[in-house]
Amino acid sequence: MLLAAALCCLSLLAAAPSAAVAAKVHHHTWDIEYQYKSLDCFRKLAVTINGEAPGPTIRATRGDTVVVTVRNKLGTENTGIHWHGIRQIGSPWADGTVGVTQCPILPDETFTYRFVVDRPGTYLYHAHYGMQRVAGLDGMIVVSEPDGVVEPFAYDEERTVLLMDWWNTSVYEQAVGLASDPLVFVTEPQSLLINGRGRSSNCSPAAPLPTLFTAVPGKTYRLRIGSLTSLSSLSFQIEGHSMTVVEADGHYVKPFVVRTLFVYSGETYSVLLKADQDPSRNYWAASNVVGRERNTTSGLAILSYAGNDPRRAPPTDQQPEAPAWDDVAPRKEQSRAIVAHPDHAVPAPPAADRRLLLLNTQNRIDNHLRWAINGVSLRFPDTPYLVSMKRGLRGAYDQRPPADAYDYRGYDISSPPTANGTVASAVYRLALGSVVDVVLQNAAMTNGKNETHPWHLHGHDFWVLGYGDGKFDPERDTGKLNLRDPIMKNTVPLHPMGWTAVRFVADNPGVWLFHCHIEAHVYMGMGVVFEEGVDRVARLPKSIMGCGRSRGLP
Amino acid sequence: MLLAAALCCLSLLAAAPSAAVAAKVHHHTWDIEYQYKSLDCFRKLAVTINGEAPGPTIRATRGDTVVVTVRNKLGTENTGIHWHGIRQIGSPWADGTVGVTQCPILPDETFTYRFVVDRPGTYLYHAHYGMQRVAGLDGMIVVSEPDGVVEPFAYDEERTVLLMDWWNTSVYEQAVGLASDPLVFVTEPQSLLINGRGRSSNCSPAAPLPTLFTAVPGKTYRLRIGSLTSLSSLSFQIEGHSMTVVEADGHYVKPFVVRTLFVYSGETYSVLLKADQDPSRNYWAASNVVGRERNTTSGLAILSYAGNDPRRAPPTDQQPEAPAWDDVAPRKEQSRAIVAHPDHAVPAPPAADRRLLLLNTQNRIDNHLRWAINGVSLRFPDTPYLVSMKRGLRGAYDQRPPADAYDYRGYDISSPPTANGTVASAVYRLALGSVVDVVLQNAAMTNGKNETHPWHLHGHDFWVLGYGDGKFDPERDTGKLNLRDPIMKNTVPLHPMGWTAVRFVADNPGVWLFHCHIEAHVYMGMGVVFEEGVDRVARLPKSIMGCGRSRGLP
Repeated sequence: MLLAAALCCLSLLAAAPSAAVAAKVHHHTWDIEYQYKSLDCFRKLAVTINGEAPGPTIRATRGDTVVVTVRNKLGTENTGIHWHGIRQIGSPWADGTVGVTQCPILPDETFTYRFVVDRPGTYLYHAHYGMQRVAGLDGMIVVSEPDGVVEPFAYDEERTVLLMDWWNTSVYEQAVGLASDPLVFVTEPQSLLINGRGRSSNCSPAAPLPTLFTAVPGKTYRLRIGSLTSLSSLSFQIEGHSMTVVEADGHYVKPFVVRTLFVYSGETYSVLLKADQDPSRNYWAASNVVGRERNTTSGLAILSYAGNDPRRAPPTDQQPEAPAWDDVAPRKEQSRAIVAHPDHAVPAPPAADRRLLLLNTQNRIDNHLRWAINGVSLRFPDTPYLVSMKRGLRGAYDQRPPADAYDYRGYDISSPPTANGTVASAVYRLALGSVVDVVLQNAAMTNGKNETHPWHLHGHDFWVLGYGDGKFDPERDTGKLNLRDPIMKNTVPLHPMGWTAVRFVADNPGVWLFHCHIEAHVYMGMGVVFEEGVDRVARLPKSIMGCGRSRGLP
Repeated sequence: MLLAAALCCLSLLAAAPSAAVAAKVHHHTWDIEYQYKSLDCFRKLAVTINGEAPGPTIRATRGDTVVVTVRNKLGTENTGIHWHGIRQIGSPWADGTVGVTQCPILPDETFTYRFVVDRPGTYLYHAHYGMQRVAGLDGMIVVSEPDGVVEPFAYDEERTVLLMDWWNTSVYEQAVGLASDPLVFVTEPQSLLINGRGRSSNCSPAAPLPTLFTAVPGKTYRLRIGSLTSLSSLSFQIEGHSMTVVEADGHYVKPFVVRTLFVYSGETYSVLLKADQDPSRNYWAASNVVGRERNTTSGLAILSYAGNDPRRAPPTDQQPEAPAWDDVAPRKEQSRAIVAHPDHAVPAPPAADRRLLLLNTQNRIDNHLRWAINGVSLRFPDTPYLVSMKRGLRGAYDQRPPADAYDYRGYDISSPPTANGTVASAVYRLALGSVVDVVLQNAAMTNGKNETHPWHLHGHDFWVLGYGDGKFDPERDTGKLNLRDPIMKNTVPLHPMGWTAVRFVADNPGVWLFHCHIEAHVYMGMGVVFEEGVDRVARLPKSIMGCGRSRGLP
């Protein structure tokens, strides 16, 4: 795998001594096309990368440049690929967010993404166009430290674990339901995939289970775990084994041990797993839905110990017991346990220049149920923000800025009003270099229930300052935020009927999406857009233009 | 129906006397989106126009202008709509042929087609992008003579009859099969639709049959019949009634009477039907597959006589007997019977300036089975020809012209070689105003069989000079062509193991596709492109640009 990756790389310089390692440029050429795949026994069309779904893992070393040339062979459908967790410093046009940073890549066209991977860690990539990610266009990015740089933990080998949920239905079918009146929400997934393989309930029992990997007894493995579910929050367990969490979203964590790891869509973790159990048998790896009433069988794979048939199922009565789907307490506990490694903490600025208090509600707007943030449901403009804001095309998006806060005094988050709200392509314009606090505030849905929303920020990492229950009260809660050892992340859960506070520095010129990472939710408007220093962005490449008002721009 | 159409029209001038009728501008705004439809009992996504599949009939009077504002609400999929049979004189950018005359219309974007309907007759419209027509984006265009202009036949009322074939599978599934190695050809359709309704074999018998229309005994009806099948050649019959053919593709025919009308994809006919049968009962209208081994149940609708329940099925044993699918003789006979009405014949130029002899073969190219014409399989460039040729972007398409003829001497059309061939975006450049003969030459497929190919020319009508069996021999057959009373058409069948000769004047500046109207065949490369006088085309609208090398053109 590493050898194959190396073969695809073009060294800018001849091999250099490890002390001054030359940055490399990794070239990949990807054909994106529909193919029939049976990822969970059910045969359906998946969007593939060079014939694979999910796609290949991109491997690079900190400081390297990754160049991915994407050829769209989807026939009549466009695409765009987001490099999730890569901040795109100096290359905001390569973020891959259609409608925000680029026009879609048309069928038969080629688009080249070029970006620097400036930090070690575990990242993701996926389609960022409509709900196309549901169709399987995704994968992982692994950025290693250069040889000789010591990480704050040790392991023998590493493996990747990509978690997904999967449906029998197509994106088109799901989207039509979401646009209908009354709304038909996507069903619970038919299956959960581990590294792209799973078993839907209609699989014959004889269908082989995937092998997670084969462990050598006594060795310690770094599992780079990422979730690109479209809907589901997940638990992940490996029977009989504990896992030490050491990295989250590319940042080193003060290590802590779990038996069950909760992973939200868009998050990545590195955990250390020691092969310290009875080596004469295999063990279950299992993912399960949490946070929504579970109606999907476990995603299963086999952790094999060397010497056993890697496809031999472990004793079925040893399958890890899934956590109760509606028990939020252990999930909040994990969230609070994730703090910065003492030797690698990045100090957060002591105070914010601006605070956004973002309330999510379900609103009925123009006869459709939509998600709104402070009453505004996001609809991407047909001209990408990056182009229209950089080039001053003021009519291309809604000029009126959305509100910095909802009227939180006296607001009842258990029964929010839902009749108001607008659909808009509005933008929060942030002062370049300013420190911004965002407090995400959850509230009950129209059915009275409440869900977990994993929010993902493009172009930045944020410090996770705290989680709380109920309604965030600036006077009461601001002083309780963690400024001592907050972890930096790019994706964070907003727990049911609670709030989550993050802080970031708006120091990356460009236009950046911040959104719930559930495909159906962002499709229904659950996101906001930040602009900072767009005038400082370098000359935009012509390749991101061609749609909306960017058509014919010189 | 006529009233509703009138309401949507905007008269440029106040009502004028019939002698000098004011041309009108008909404005339509169409939302194109996926919706679930059960056109034949099977519920599946269809591409709809304002919620309808097939779409509404456009009605106008000769000389009027039609303006259709298309809003693409397909999510992640593009579109483009061709106005089939409209020559687009002076508006070649409105032909709707993605890759030839425009870039695709992107999701969330709006595109306006504006064109003059300069001749009376029966026309069609449909998606012209990938195989998108398979998904249902189609309908009819009826252009009437102004009041006071007498047509060469009389009738009391008129009705439209749109024939289609329909699948349970999606376009995406069909396209993946066609691109596979080995190729998986599209199956025979699950059903045949008459005016958008049919019964697949899994329909409950209780599913209601559509009513074609209710006839008043003694009245004569003009049926405007069009076929937008994706694959099938069809027969059309109305039990107990004969039909007098009076129009084909917008040209008046020397009337002839049939019991069975054969209709190829892309063709239109007007037939007169007199309600002269026993008025106490209803009658079957039936379409059936011909030319391919029939594996699809009849498309059925009820011709009702006034006074009967319009949904009461006729006696089942009276269903018209479908013609043998493989009996080509009556189909050739009909082709030869279609000649110009003596009072409305347009004289053909007596001789051609250039003759193209176009042989179709199946070729294995780059591990894929493709159709080729004189060895060249057409692939649309990612920059529309109209833009690249008008603006001199020579690298945007293949400069090497395809051959005017295949090496017909000694060529064996019963076992053509299939190992050669290339894929290219080549163009036949025609001298503006020149007279061009095209002889289409059929040949056996790789499986030894042979099929009927309905060829459709954009931007022109052609004179149909003749049909023949076997191989066209210029010395032997040129003298036998019909220059006395050839009909003009825009779509013509190429019968199995035969040839079809047409003539046209290259007098419409622009770039025009000429292709087999079977969706899978043109998708596999069965077409050619003609350019004439592109330097005479007026300034191109910016709205057709944005893709390929037209991105960023000023």
